Amino acid sequence: MLGGACTYISLAASYFTGVNIVAVVGEDFAQEDFDLLAGRGIDLTGLERVPGKTFFWAGVYSADMNERTTLRTDLNVFADFQPKLPPAYRAQPYLLLGNIQPGLQRAVRAQMNGLRLVGGDTMNYWIADYREELLKTIAEWDFLLINDSEARMLAGENNLIRAAAKILRMGPHTLVIKRGEYGAILFRHDGHFMAPGYLLQDVFDPTGAGDCFAGGFIGYLAGQGVDPRHDTIPHGDLRRAVIYGSVMGSFCCEKFGVDRFRTLTRDEVDARYQEFKDCTDF
Amino acid sequence: MLGGACTYISLAASYFTGVNIVAVVGEDFAQEDFDLLAGRGIDLTGLERVPGKTFFWAGVYSADMNERTTLRTDLNVFADFQPKLPPAYRAQPYLLLGNIQPGLQRAVRAQMNGLRLVGGDTMNYWIADYREELLKTIAEWDFLLINDSEARMLAGENNLIRAAAKILRMGPHTLVIKRGEYGAILFRHDGHFMAPGYLLQDVFDPTGAGDCFAGGFIGYLAGQGVDPRHDTIPHGDLRRAVIYGSVMGSFCCEKFGVDRFRTLTRDEVDARYQEFKDCTDF
Repeated sequence: MLGGACTYISLAASYFTGVNIVAVVGEDFAQEDFDLLAGRGIDLTGLERVPGKTFFWAGVYSADMNERTTLRTDLNVFADFQPKLPPAYRAQPYLLLGNIQPGLQRAVRAQMNGLRLVGGDTMNYWIADYREELLKTIAEWDFLLINDSEARMLAGENNLIRAAAKILRMGPHTLVIKRGEYGAILFRHDGHFMAPGYLLQDVFDPTGAGDCFAGGFIGYLAGQGVDPRHDTIPHGDLRRAVIYGSVMGSFCCEKFGVDRFRTLTRDEVDARYQEFKDCTDF
Repeated sequence: MLGGACTYISLAASYFTGVNIVAVVGEDFAQEDFDLLAGRGIDLTGLERVPGKTFFWAGVYSADMNERTTLRTDLNVFADFQPKLPPAYRAQPYLLLGNIQPGLQRAVRAQMNGLRLVGGDTMNYWIADYREELLKTIAEWDFLLINDSEARMLAGENNLIRAAAKILRMGPHTLVIKRGEYGAILFRHDGHFMAPGYLLQDVFDPTGAGDCFAGGFIGYLAGQGVDPRHDTIPHGDLRRAVIYGSVMGSFCCEKFGVDRFRTLTRDEVDARYQEFKDCTDF
């Protein structure tokens, strides 16, 4: 079925702002999948369609959904992907770089000419085997979104406060450490903010939840028009962006794959944001 | 060194209210340990001293402090402990039952004659091997404090929301599920409240943190004089009790054993409460 970081990020962000994507698919990419993305108003100009098959991943989750085992990864057309931005994208102010080879992330950033806010995601593989490349890449970012085990690995430090302090010296002024069902922590030089994980009665499928978090986070900030070139981002906006990220990640888990986004409304998003407020306020 | 559930609970609670303890020690119990407890204003009338040695426990923690292995447990004088309440204790309105054999917990409760609020702690051993006894015991409680794996075990249900709903049908109107470094969740029939775990730069020793949580929780509620016989406990009080529980648990981890309580002040407690507010507000 339809999946992939770009899909989840763009679907989640589309509830808050206009979205332009850059990605590659093969000849097998279904019309109904184009239609789902286009139906959410996502600009597909940068979606390349090339001969061959689309990237494919299959995996299985443990009973408590906290661990996953990859069964199959076929790179297919993704193997030779060299992201090229359509001219109309280059002056966009907000850029989220999904989890790919750090050199490619840097090449995308280099094609942009009016950025206000740039950040992205990475993973254990790049941290372990592409460390120098990754450090050069995130040195140019405003924010980094990673999970807790990756933060510990990147910093070489088990304690999260110390790991965060080290990462904030690598470039980004804002770090969001995702902790799966336990929520997320926003770190800045002057303090941190803790968001709980939303309690779900049924976790059908956590695939894409981290990407939906990223989409909600950058989507909300873009929708607010934050501009840290001229000032710092207001703390309140950053905190609300973390909550909206958590909201979008929680919806993602409620159905298989992207299915929840076929019916999700902005009213439901805002109602869940209010639930986060109600269950954390004291 | 000095330890034990009763010690940690009473030290933590003593920052909020008067405390009377019921416990047993042997002839080896040190004068400086009596002095520490008495110095915090804790009423030791119910502390029995009998021939033999005091209960002794030794254990070792994993590098990330999330797992512990017991090296030695000597019950000593604790083996024949039959808690007898001094007459002056019996009319007290607030009762916290530490983690012992459920039948003994019930026997203590039966000696009280003016309770407003009663609850306690239990553990995997009693859940597995004394289930019927435990169910009879907690059926008489207002609140239960347990950790997440024990909640799942007690309810026979992996999902925390469903596990909590099941436990709330066993008697207690209030359930607090402790999640170690990830904080705690307060469940009631009409909703839940999520408190984050305090981020510590250094966790010296988590021994007693759960008991300090319990002490802060009941201590705060007792200090407020809540009286659910005549009305429900205000939501705000319950939420603040969970935060004060978390505050006391976090201080406990900062030094070995009970050492942090040798210097801790109420001002420090309130400053950390404010930190919880600052890092969760949005």
